[in-house]
Amino acid sequence: MILDELRHPIVQAPMAGGTSTPALAIAVCEAGGLGFVAGGYRSVEAMQADIAAVRIGTTAPFGVNLFVPGVRSVTSVAVDEQSVDKHAVDAQALQLYVDRLGPEAEHYGTQVGVPRPDDDGWAAKLSALVADPVPIVSFTFGAPSAREISDLQGVGSQVWLTVTDVAEARAARSAGADVLVLQGVEAGGHRGSWLDVDEPEGLSTFALLRLVSRAVDLPLVAAGGLIDGPGIAAALVAGATAVQLGTAFLLCDEVGTHPVHRERLGGDTPTALTRAFTGRTARALRNRFLDAHTRGAPAAYPQVHFATAPIRAAAREQGDGDGFNLFAGQTYRLATGGSAAELVKSLGAQTRQALATAATRAEP
Amino acid sequence: MILDELRHPIVQAPMAGGTSTPALAIAVCEAGGLGFVAGGYRSVEAMQADIAAVRIGTTAPFGVNLFVPGVRSVTSVAVDEQSVDKHAVDAQALQLYVDRLGPEAEHYGTQVGVPRPDDDGWAAKLSALVADPVPIVSFTFGAPSAREISDLQGVGSQVWLTVTDVAEARAARSAGADVLVLQGVEAGGHRGSWLDVDEPEGLSTFALLRLVSRAVDLPLVAAGGLIDGPGIAAALVAGATAVQLGTAFLLCDEVGTHPVHRERLGGDTPTALTRAFTGRTARALRNRFLDAHTRGAPAAYPQVHFATAPIRAAAREQGDGDGFNLFAGQTYRLATGGSAAELVKSLGAQTRQALATAATRAEP
Repeated sequence: MILDELRHPIVQAPMAGGTSTPALAIAVCEAGGLGFVAGGYRSVEAMQADIAAVRIGTTAPFGVNLFVPGVRSVTSVAVDEQSVDKHAVDAQALQLYVDRLGPEAEHYGTQVGVPRPDDDGWAAKLSALVADPVPIVSFTFGAPSAREISDLQGVGSQVWLTVTDVAEARAARSAGADVLVLQGVEAGGHRGSWLDVDEPEGLSTFALLRLVSRAVDLPLVAAGGLIDGPGIAAALVAGATAVQLGTAFLLCDEVGTHPVHRERLGGDTPTALTRAFTGRTARALRNRFLDAHTRGAPAAYPQVHFATAPIRAAAREQGDGDGFNLFAGQTYRLATGGSAAELVKSLGAQTRQALATAATRAEP
Repeated sequence: MILDELRHPIVQAPMAGGTSTPALAIAVCEAGGLGFVAGGYRSVEAMQADIAAVRIGTTAPFGVNLFVPGVRSVTSVAVDEQSVDKHAVDAQALQLYVDRLGPEAEHYGTQVGVPRPDDDGWAAKLSALVADPVPIVSFTFGAPSAREISDLQGVGSQVWLTVTDVAEARAARSAGADVLVLQGVEAGGHRGSWLDVDEPEGLSTFALLRLVSRAVDLPLVAAGGLIDGPGIAAALVAGATAVQLGTAFLLCDEVGTHPVHRERLGGDTPTALTRAFTGRTARALRNRFLDAHTRGAPAAYPQVHFATAPIRAAAREQGDGDGFNLFAGQTYRLATGGSAAELVKSLGAQTRQALATAATRAEP
């Protein structure tokens, strides 16, 4: 088991859309953590290039993350019988939202993108990973079919599935997952929920850890709100084998975080959950776009992602932090930055320190 | 410091409305935890009777919890300049909601209660606690004035304030609090937020613990989602001096939990946040009433509390778990029950075990 052999129990979260870089994955791996290539939003060729770059930089094990497209997760592991309907996009709500985006596009001197369904190159990416295996393949937004999972396992890859509640955890186990990534509601970026339905319970990382620990006997990686040594140590005490950190790395040198995003991470704005940017629930720093559009944004992923893409790109180019997604977890104020390798080593040491201190409290 | 001298770092959450009982507080105190009298919703005389009962049953320190009425928290420690407006009740929204409750009342053979403001006997309760001091007075829904806090401290009581974000934690410190109770979004029952505004960030217990640990130098009691030894141990590792448990006790013999509520705690229904029952955000098991009325319920506390009171009482009497508030935290499925004293001792032992095990993971 790769997790047991890590020098530090720290997994770098795959942050798609240019945030994660091969340099980040290499730095984390070389420091004794576990780096990830973010395969989501990339062409199969770009994903392969990232994998090749990581292999040049490190001989340590690493992972690749893929997004499970909506239709796949329905045909493979259905959470309940209504799954098919729950994945359906409300065309009228989507059109209304696209209309609302018109003035935004105009404001940034661009046009609203064409909303369309897309499977993010699913079959091609899976084939590429079976043909040229990597140590770990993790999935977000659902589960591949049992066959797809066993194909990956058959070529020696571990399969990790991201879950946000106990039902998903049980389904992931049934599908054949080797490891579960438990993503709490604190996490920055997209919620990994298999279905993006309204009014989920929103289990926190530690609630999820305790509930899943008692329900499913698999190694657990805790994600969401973990950003410093005492928090990481707490997750290990609560039953995690390792933690997955995303926001913790956002200020690091090797990460593609936009300068304006970096600046706002130094502020005090609260985060919020929103579908405004991509049509799928995600946690980001509140900004003008989020506040203006959260209420009207439908559950329509990746249609909304494509519709807002030119607006977000233009806002980024213009350095306007009020026009694109400033993904961040609830504890972002504690992110430090610097070199990712130094951060992994420092967090590893702080974690051991917190665990050693814990022992002194065990005395009656 | 009372917290440092507890045999087990476990505080029993004050659960108002007949759930907490003097017998529960006594059992927890005698087992080596810290019991609480729930002073909210009680007359000053009933609160005094509960205090007298606890004093007969135990010589250990205990606490009394009070609800801070809306107007008080505005005049004392304002979170921001708009506080006054944020406390104002939307009379039209309230009337609309009261109208919607008509069929509910009819269904249960009763009438909608009269919605009215109320300060829960604030001045009388404070005077009683100054005249006849208890070891700890904790507050929910805001902070008393600095003067009221120092009056209590002047007669030897510790003052604990409940907070749900970093701004409230800083304000509580400024107001003179001795201890902060950090209530995460996982917690069952009412959110202790000082202002019940829409779209709060909803910080989890552990996010709050890490953020407040780094911002305010006071002993912290963690509340929300903590229900078993590993979770409690994790909170201590993350910086808590003790934990406050509510849902953990809901199935205990000494607790006034309704039989139907107990039964549903054995099920698998998700929890949700709602203002449907009292006009103030609270976490409960989803049931028919919650699902039907959450969307229409205004932020109007305690007006809605009084409006729904006869309906809830009738549903309780009829044993209909779809008509009253089944408060529960996110991890309620792990609640066990039995004797509260045994539970405290068992959780204390599990916690020490988890801390001792943690030390073995500190080795490089």
